[in-house]
Amino acid sequence: MKDMKLPKGWAVAAFLAVTAFAVPAFAEDASVGETVVQLAYAVDTFYFLMTGALVMWMAAGFTMLESGLVRSKNTVEILTKNVALYAIACIMYMLVGYNIMYGGGPNSLIPGLGFLLGADHTVTEVLQSGGKVYYSAMADFFFQVVFVATAMSIVSGAVAERMKLWSFLAFAVVLTGFIYPVQGYWKWGKGFLDALGFLDFAGSGVVHLCGASAALAGVLLLGPRKGKYAGGRIKAIPGANLPLAALGTLVLWLGWFGFNGGSELKISNITEANAVAMVFVNTNTAAAGGLVAALILSRFWFGKADLTMALNGALAGLVAITAEPLTPSPLVATLIGAIAGLLVVAAIIFIDKAKIDDPVGAISVHGVCGIWGLLAVVFTNPKGSLIAQLAGIGTIFAWCFGTSFIVWMIIKAVMGVRVSEEEEMEGVDVAECGLAAYPEFTKE
Amino acid sequence: MKDMKLPKGWAVAAFLAVTAFAVPAFAEDASVGETVVQLAYAVDTFYFLMTGALVMWMAAGFTMLESGLVRSKNTVEILTKNVALYAIACIMYMLVGYNIMYGGGPNSLIPGLGFLLGADHTVTEVLQSGGKVYYSAMADFFFQVVFVATAMSIVSGAVAERMKLWSFLAFAVVLTGFIYPVQGYWKWGKGFLDALGFLDFAGSGVVHLCGASAALAGVLLLGPRKGKYAGGRIKAIPGANLPLAALGTLVLWLGWFGFNGGSELKISNITEANAVAMVFVNTNTAAAGGLVAALILSRFWFGKADLTMALNGALAGLVAITAEPLTPSPLVATLIGAIAGLLVVAAIIFIDKAKIDDPVGAISVHGVCGIWGLLAVVFTNPKGSLIAQLAGIGTIFAWCFGTSFIVWMIIKAVMGVRVSEEEEMEGVDVAECGLAAYPEFTKE
Amino acid sequence: MKDMKLPKGWAVAAFLAVTAFAVPAFAEDASVGETVVQLAYAVDTFYFLMTGALVMWMAAGFTMLESGLVRSKNTVEILTKNVALYAIACIMYMLVGYNIMYGGGPNSLIPGLGFLLGADHTVTEVLQSGGKVYYSAMADFFFQVVFVATAMSIVSGAVAERMKLWSFLAFAVVLTGFIYPVQGYWKWGKGFLDALGFLDFAGSGVVHLCGASAALAGVLLLGPRKGKYAGGRIKAIPGANLPLAALGTLVLWLGWFGFNGGSELKISNITEANAVAMVFVNTNTAAAGGLVAALILSRFWFGKADLTMALNGALAGLVAITAEPLTPSPLVATLIGAIAGLLVVAAIIFIDKAKIDDPVGAISVHGVCGIWGLLAVVFTNPKGSLIAQLAGIGTIFAWCFGTSFIVWMIIKAVMGVRVSEEEEMEGVDVAECGLAAYPEFTKE
Repeated sequence: MKDMKLPKGWAVAAFLAVTAFAVPAFAEDASVGETVVQLAYAVDTFYFLMTGALVMWMAAGFTMLESGLVRSKNTVEILTKNVALYAIACIMYMLVGYNIMYGGGPNSLIPGLGFLLGADHTVTEVLQSGGKVYYSAMADFFFQVVFVATAMSIVSGAVAERMKLWSFLAFAVVLTGFIYPVQGYWKWGKGFLDALGFLDFAGSGVVHLCGASAALAGVLLLGPRKGKYAGGRIKAIPGANLPLAALGTLVLWLGWFGFNGGSELKISNITEANAVAMVFVNTNTAAAGGLVAALILSRFWFGKADLTMALNGALAGLVAITAEPLTPSPLVATLIGAIAGLLVVAAIIFIDKAKIDDPVGAISVHGVCGIWGLLAVVFTNPKGSLIAQLAGIGTIFAWCFGTSFIVWMIIKAVMGVRVSEEEEMEGVDVAECGLAAYPEFTKE
Repeated sequence: MKDMKLPKGWAVAAFLAVTAFAVPAFAEDASVGETVVQLAYAVDTFYFLMTGALVMWMAAGFTMLESGLVRSKNTVEILTKNVALYAIACIMYMLVGYNIMYGGGPNSLIPGLGFLLGADHTVTEVLQSGGKVYYSAMADFFFQVVFVATAMSIVSGAVAERMKLWSFLAFAVVLTGFIYPVQGYWKWGKGFLDALGFLDFAGSGVVHLCGASAALAGVLLLGPRKGKYAGGRIKAIPGANLPLAALGTLVLWLGWFGFNGGSELKISNITEANAVAMVFVNTNTAAAGGLVAALILSRFWFGKADLTMALNGALAGLVAITAEPLTPSPLVATLIGAIAGLLVVAAIIFIDKAKIDDPVGAISVHGVCGIWGLLAVVFTNPKGSLIAQLAGIGTIFAWCFGTSFIVWMIIKAVMGVRVSEEEEMEGVDVAECGLAAYPEFTKE
Repeated sequence: MKDMKLPKGWAVAAFLAVTAFAVPAFAEDASVGETVVQLAYAVDTFYFLMTGALVMWMAAGFTMLESGLVRSKNTVEILTKNVALYAIACIMYMLVGYNIMYGGGPNSLIPGLGFLLGADHTVTEVLQSGGKVYYSAMADFFFQVVFVATAMSIVSGAVAERMKLWSFLAFAVVLTGFIYPVQGYWKWGKGFLDALGFLDFAGSGVVHLCGASAALAGVLLLGPRKGKYAGGRIKAIPGANLPLAALGTLVLWLGWFGFNGGSELKISNITEANAVAMVFVNTNTAAAGGLVAALILSRFWFGKADLTMALNGALAGLVAITAEPLTPSPLVATLIGAIAGLLVVAAIIFIDKAKIDDPVGAISVHGVCGIWGLLAVVFTNPKGSLIAQLAGIGTIFAWCFGTSFIVWMIIKAVMGVRVSEEEEMEGVDVAECGLAAYPEFTKE
C-alpha cells in the first residue's frame, strides 16, 4: 500500500474496508465501534460476576471461622445460622433491600422503593448512554447482594453459643432487608453521607462497622455465656476446631479480593485496570501486615504465638484497608494493616475485660478496625476529611446500633433471644437442631 | 476537525487513520476489526476457563459433603473414591467420552468417534468463521470434562459405607467414558432429544438425573447398610463431621455459578453478558429459596431445624434451577428453588421409608429435584413442551438406570460390589485403604 | 448501502463515521483503536488478577494439606507457620525480593535493586509501547508475590512437628526476600539460566525444586522426629485429619490452574487464549494421571489403596507438568503426570528408608517430581536441551540447598532450630502457641 498515490485517510479507509469485509460477523450486524462497546460491557459484567462470586465465597469463610472457634456442642447451630443468614440475606435484599438502597434519588434522606428487578439494560440503551451504562444491572445486583450477607455474617459470631436460632434469623430478616440498606443508601445510594464527603471505598463502615454495631447491640442485650466471667475471672473458652478457623480466614482473605477489587466497579480501560490491580495488592499486603503485627504482639504480650490472634490480625488488616484500598502505596497499606493488627489484639483483650462476651472477636475485628480504616482514609486520600469520616462513623454506628437494639428488644419480648440455662449447658445443637456436629469425637 | 470542508466520512477516515498510526502494534500486523474479533475470542475463552475452574471446584464440594455425612470409619474410603473418580472422569472423557458426545453429526442416534483432541482453532479459521468459531476448543473440552466428573460424584454418596472401592472405580470408568457421553450426545451433541425440543440448559437431566439414576441402580443392587433397617425400624446414622458437610455445600453453591453461568456458552456482547448475569442471580436465589424452605419445613415436620435438610435444600434448589436458569425472573427462580427444597425433604423421608438406603440423600437431591427442574421449564420457558420434557426425563432415566444396572451386575459377577460383613462393621477405611481418617479422635 | 455508487472504501468510511458518532463516548475522548488497546490491557490485567487469586488460594491448600497430615498435638503450630509464612512472603517480596528478581538488566549475574513499586504504567506509555506494555505492573507484582509464598509453603511440611516456630519464620524471611528471588532472577528475570536456554514454564524448578531443596537442607540439619526411626524400624506416623489433607490437595489442584494458566502471561488474542486453554487442560490431566498411577501402584505395592499416596500422586503430576504445560498434547501430559505419580510413591519410600524424615512427602513431590518435570521438557518442547535443563536443575539445587543450609546453620547457632524433647513429646502446639487444635477431641 506504500506506493499508492491516494491520500493517507483514503488508504486507511480502504484498509479498514477490506478488513471489515474479511470479518463478516461484524460488518453485517454491527460496526467495530459498537462491537467494542459491547465487548467492554461484557468484560465489566464478567468482572462483577467473578468478584461477586469471590464475595459469596466469604460466606464459607465466616462459616468455617465461626464453626472452628465455638465449642463442639454449639457447632451445628452456628453452621445453620451461617448458611441460613446467607439465604435470608439474598431473599430479603432482592425483595426489599436493593430497592431501598439504590432506588432513591440523590442526596435525599428518604430512600426510593421502586422495583429494580425487572429487565436488564437493552443494547440500544447501552450504546446510546455514552459509556454511562457499561455493565449488567443483574451483575450489579449480584455483587450487592453478597455484600449484605457479609454484614450479617459478622453478627452470628458475636452472639454465638447462647442465642436462639430463630430469633437470630428473625433479626437477619430485618437487618438485611431494612437496617443495612438504609445506611447503605446514605453512602452508596448517593444519600446524605455521600453528599457530605464521607469516603468508604468498599465498606469498612457500610458493611463492617454496620455488622459490628448490630452485633454489639445483640451481645449487650444477650449477656455473656454461662461461666465466661464466673467469680470475677475471665475464662478462656477455646474453639473446638482450629484448622477450620484458619481455613475460614484464608477463605475470607481470598474473598476479599472480590470484595475490594470489585468495588472499583469498572476494569475495562487502562486506568481502571491499574486501579483494580492496586486494590488487589493493597488488600493482600494489609492482611499480611495485620497478621504479622498481631502475631508478634501476642508473642510479647502473652508469651505465645497465638494463632487466633494472628488470624484476627489478618482480618483486621482486611477490614481496615477496605475503606480506602486504592490511594495508599503498598507500603502504606501494609502499615495500615499492621496498625489494625495491633489494635485488634488490644481491642479483644479490652472488650473481654469489659465483660462483653464476643466469642470470635467480631466486634474488635469489624467494629474497631472498621473505624480505624475509615479514619486512615484522611491520611491517604487527599479528598478525605476528618469531619466527614467522623460523621459517617457516628451515623452508621448510631443507626445500626440503635435500630438493632430496638429490633433485638422486640424479638426478646416476642420470642426471647436466649436459650435456657439447661440448653446452654447441654449445647444448643441438640436443643435447636437435634444433631451433633461430631457425634463420634466427643462424649455427650 | 469541525471546520473541515471534507465530507463527514472523510473526516472520520482520517481520524481513524491517525489513530491507527498512533497504535503501531495494531496498524502493523492486524486491523482494528480483526483485533476485536481476537479479543472477543480471548474473553469468551477466559470465561470458559474460569467457569470451568469453578465447576472443577465442585469436586471438592462433593468430597467434603460426603466425607462429612458418613461415619468416621468410612471416611478415608469416600475421600479416595471422590478424588479418584474425578481423575478417572478426566482421563476417560478425554480418551473416549468427549468424542462420543460431540463427535457425531446432528440428529443421529449413533455418536461419532472421531478424535477431537488435536490442535485448537487457527487464527484464520476464527477470522473466517463469521463469528461461529468464537472460543478455544480446548477451553470447551475443559468445561465439558469437569461436568462429567460432577455426574459421577453424585453416585459415590449414595453407595457410601458399603461398596467396594475398586468396583466403584470400575463403574466410574464406564459411566464417564460411555453411559454419560451417549445421553449427553442425545441432548448437547445435537442428538435426537435435542431435535425433539427437550430443554436442559446446564444439566438437571443430562448431569444430575443421569448421576442419580446410576446411583439408584447401584443402591438397589447393593442393599442398605447393616443395621439401617434392622427390626423393621429406620435407624438414623449421623455423619461424623458436619462442618465439612456445610463447607461442601457452600463449595458446591460457589461452583454452581460456573456450572450454570458457563453453560450460557458466551459472554462477549451485551445480550450474552446480561444472560450470564441473570443466570448467576437465579442460581443464587434458587439455592437460597431451597435452603429456607427446607429449613422451615424440617422445623415444622421434625420440631428441629435440621442442618442436613437445609443443606440438601440448597442443593435441591441448585439442581432444579439448572434446567432453566435464564428465563425465570429472580422471584420465580426463588420459588422454583423453594419448591425443590420442600420436595427434597419429602423425598428423603419417602425414599428412606421405602428402605432405599441413600446415606447422603443424593437420589432425592439430584434425581427428584432434577426431574422437578426439567418439568418447571414448561412454566418458565415459552419454548418448553411437557411432552419433550417427559421424553427427555424418560429417556435419560431409562438409559442411565438400565445401562448402569447392567454394568453393576457385571461388576458384581466379576469382582463383587459389596464389602464383607466384617469389613462393613470394622469400617471400609481399614479394609480398603489401610488408613484411619481421624486416628486420634475415635476409639478403634 | 448496496446501491451506493461510491467506491467501497468510502462506503465503509462513512459507515464507520456513523458508528463513531452513534457511540459518543468513544468518538469524543478516544479512537476505537485506542479503546481496543485499552480493553485488551484490561483483559490481560484481569486475567493476571484472577489467576493470581487462584495461586493465593494455594496457601489454603498447603495449610489444609499439612494440618491434615500432622498429629493433632502439632496442628496449631503448622497452621500458624503456614499463615505466617504467607504474610512474611508478601512483605519480604514487596520490600526486597521483587526488586532483586526483576530489577536487573538481562543476562547478568548481579541482580538490580531498583525500586519497582512506584506508579503503574501510564495510558500514554501503554499506547505508545506498540503492544509491549500490555498489562498492569501491579497485577504482575500480585501474580509474582503469590508464587514466592508457594515456594516457602513447601518447606513447612517437611520440617513439621519438631522445628521451632520462630526459627522457621526467620528462615522464611531470608528465603522469600533473598534466596528465592536470586534464582528466580537467573531464569525469569532474564539472568544467565534464561540465556543458557533453561526452560521452566511456571516453576517446576524455580518454585518447586527451590522449595524442596531448602526443605531438604532443613530436614538434614533438624533430624527425624522422635521415635520415627527408633530401634532401626520405620514407624508410620499417621496424620490426624485426612479430610483436610484431601481438601488441601483439591485446593492446590484448583489453584494450579492459576499457577500454570497465569504463567502464559497473556490471554488477549486467539493464539494466547488457545495457549492458556491448553495449559488448563494439561494441568488438569497431568494431575489426574498422577493420582491414578499412584493409587494403582500403592494398591499393588502395599496391598491397600493408600489415600495419602493418591493425593501426593496428584500433586506430583501437577509439579511435573509445571515445567512445560503448553507443548505436550493432553495424552502426553497425562503420561508425564502418571510417571510422576509412580516416581513419587517410590521416592517417598526411598527417602523414608534413607531415614530422611519428611512428614508430608514434600521433598519427593516438589523435589523429585520437579526434576522429572524439568527433564521431561526435553521430550515435549523442541527448544528444550538436556544440557540446559541439567544446568538449571544443578544451579537451582546447589544455590537453594547451599544457601539454605548456611542460613539454617546460622539460625541454629543463634536461636536453635529444634524444640526440646519434652516439647516434642507434649506437642509443639502448647509449647509454641499455647493452644490446642482440637481441645475436645483428644485426651491431653
